Amino acid sequence: MADEFVPQWIIEKKRDGGALAEGEIREWIARYADGRLPDYQMAALAMAVYWRGMSADETLWLTDAMMRSGDTLSWSGLGRATADKHSTGGIGDKLSIPLAPLVAACGVAVPMISGRGLGITGGTLDKLESIPGYDTHLDNARFRAVVDRVGCSIIGQTDRLAPADRKLYALRDVTGTVPSIPLITASILSKKLAEGADVLVFDVKCGAGAFMKTPARARALADSLLAVARGAGRKAEALVTPMDQPVGRTAGNALEIAESVEILRGGGPADARSLVLDLAVPMLVLGGAAPDAPAARALLESKLASGAALETFSRMVEAQGGDPRVADAPEKVLPQAPAVLDVPAPRAGTLSRVDADGIGRAVLLLGGGRRAVTDAIDFSVGVSRLRKVGETVASGEPLVRLHARSRAEAEALVPQVLAAFSFA
Amino acid sequence: MADEFVPQWIIEKKRDGGALAEGEIREWIARYADGRLPDYQMAALAMAVYWRGMSADETLWLTDAMMRSGDTLSWSGLGRATADKHSTGGIGDKLSIPLAPLVAACGVAVPMISGRGLGITGGTLDKLESIPGYDTHLDNARFRAVVDRVGCSIIGQTDRLAPADRKLYALRDVTGTVPSIPLITASILSKKLAEGADVLVFDVKCGAGAFMKTPARARALADSLLAVARGAGRKAEALVTPMDQPVGRTAGNALEIAESVEILRGGGPADARSLVLDLAVPMLVLGGAAPDAPAARALLESKLASGAALETFSRMVEAQGGDPRVADAPEKVLPQAPAVLDVPAPRAGTLSRVDADGIGRAVLLLGGGRRAVTDAIDFSVGVSRLRKVGETVASGEPLVRLHARSRAEAEALVPQVLAAFSFA
Repeated sequence: MADEFVPQWIIEKKRDGGALAEGEIREWIARYADGRLPDYQMAALAMAVYWRGMSADETLWLTDAMMRSGDTLSWSGLGRATADKHSTGGIGDKLSIPLAPLVAACGVAVPMISGRGLGITGGTLDKLESIPGYDTHLDNARFRAVVDRVGCSIIGQTDRLAPADRKLYALRDVTGTVPSIPLITASILSKKLAEGADVLVFDVKCGAGAFMKTPARARALADSLLAVARGAGRKAEALVTPMDQPVGRTAGNALEIAESVEILRGGGPADARSLVLDLAVPMLVLGGAAPDAPAARALLESKLASGAALETFSRMVEAQGGDPRVADAPEKVLPQAPAVLDVPAPRAGTLSRVDADGIGRAVLLLGGGRRAVTDAIDFSVGVSRLRKVGETVASGEPLVRLHARSRAEAEALVPQVLAAFSFA
Repeated sequence: MADEFVPQWIIEKKRDGGALAEGEIREWIARYADGRLPDYQMAALAMAVYWRGMSADETLWLTDAMMRSGDTLSWSGLGRATADKHSTGGIGDKLSIPLAPLVAACGVAVPMISGRGLGITGGTLDKLESIPGYDTHLDNARFRAVVDRVGCSIIGQTDRLAPADRKLYALRDVTGTVPSIPLITASILSKKLAEGADVLVFDVKCGAGAFMKTPARARALADSLLAVARGAGRKAEALVTPMDQPVGRTAGNALEIAESVEILRGGGPADARSLVLDLAVPMLVLGGAAPDAPAARALLESKLASGAALETFSRMVEAQGGDPRVADAPEKVLPQAPAVLDVPAPRAGTLSRVDADGIGRAVLLLGGGRRAVTDAIDFSVGVSRLRKVGETVASGEPLVRLHARSRAEAEALVPQVLAAFSFA
């Protein structure tokens, strides 16, 4: 009887608040990945985990078992430290796009496997695909070659990376078991650990526009990510950053690429630029490219000022089949929406709130996002020139510019867009 | 959006402690019953219900929806009140077998749909099938004809009775969601309400040998059963009765039929006889066959003394194809085990504990129960002459008689059987 694997006993143990053994978790995931364990038992266990939680050890075993359900990459022959960043996602969060080439320009390689947007949250892959020709589907050999040659590469997840997570993620989505910290941790890290980077930096978003609404929940997720990443032998750091208003002044795929180029040129909106640097610093320090944070910051500034970061971006785009001129003249390369409409402020005042969800919904309705995974995206649409919290506007001054497929579509959205802004 | 049925939203509502609406529950069960809603969503909801519970209203809607997933019977043309009893099950619990004909003999019809045993808990159907020829598979028309003619009939559940419960019960069994009071209530009552009896009496077992281990849990289940049965317009009463030692002095299929015949003859073990009367009283009073409990008790005693109860049993057996001589000479009709072994008391003393589970396991190991639903049962094996808690035995005096397929099998079980007995 001791060797017998009885799934319902494992469910009952978790249901009653017990801790699962390493062997139970590994066997569970192995059976789930290859189809011997049915979705209904996984769903019941997921709900029990949602309720009862998991210890740091259990979460680590779960993550490791899910990681081992597929391919794992190793960068040991690269001759450089590797680092990656994961963000829990938010409106206007294009930070990976300037971050990867900037860190690579400083000598730490960035092999980044990224995701698509769903609903109001954009995806790094979609943004990159707005660059004509950019290919996010590299196989392992080509991914490795681009990282080796350029220093960074941003690609999409293959079917062979943590397939247990792919299966479990789809199940959680339809069984009310998404917002569980151990399950989120295992989902994020089974992929990130499989990717093989030495250093992982987490950007846990917190606020009205984030998945984690409260600082306590965001901190709990950050701590869980750190415990598992470090438990798995990686160097790791986590930042909890606000997500109440969108990051930067753009939201929408091509528009965010253009803003990323601005950042790589040393400019860009202060909040986005500052976040890129804050995330890059631990990647360099933990990756051994700088002795401490001030040195890392100085190195990063120098690579922005010298154009080396922009050059690395341009080479990454070219290596992945994209038009490298996007780095010099994004407006000439990226798709442009046919209609542009500035939304005027209905009154003068200082902005006290710019609702990230409201702006995200507007981008979705303009055609820049997906309601279902099969939806097509219009890369050109979105918002730009977004005014930020704390800024003072005159009556009639533009609050945001809408990029739409037609003037009528833009005009129809004005009342909704205005509702995203509050004045102090 | 208001009309859209999104299963995960319903799961999330329950997960977060909310109450489901009547329409949500009815739609959920309708879709689950016809296969439009997958097992994994049902499993997640079942675990959320296990965690968060259900209000009396929610439980009533769930029960009613599950009942309506199949056939419902009506006894309105019968000209008599109808009553049934449900027990949550325990070792040696043969009470339905004498109870149904006894109550029928008093003028309240008993259309009883009963279940099989699994594991250490015996089933009324298995016990009845130890009577040669007894057919538990009657169709609705024949069931009705036997109830009409004899006053009672005990049959098995058809596929058309509460099929949603059949499906959900199998799922709960493998997803750790069995011991949930609202789900147990809906499972029991979806079948019992479909059966159509006017009066329902519940025997909720409580103790070490019962599903409900504590009086508080047993009372909670009793209250839930009463609330839903009464909410569905039935007259109902519930008894919480102890299940620490087996009921009566026998456990095992044919042996329990013989003991049932003893009870119907006006004899039998005091505890079993007393329980039969305690359960019969509310069936008669609520069924209108007696004005109050003392009158009901007098009527019951008279039907035992006159032989009318035994005669009704004999007629029921005959009407269902069984050998009616079982009522006169059970030892000649029922299968007899080839080997009989008395287990002597290892010391003198007063019994302080006779463990129901231990005795139940012994009967299972003798071949009298099922480990899996497909296992065959040996009707002849089991235990008899069981000494009860509070009785004093001399050293060497038999504690229990084992009925086995061989003397060796019986002897091998003696240490285990002895472990079920404790002395004060």
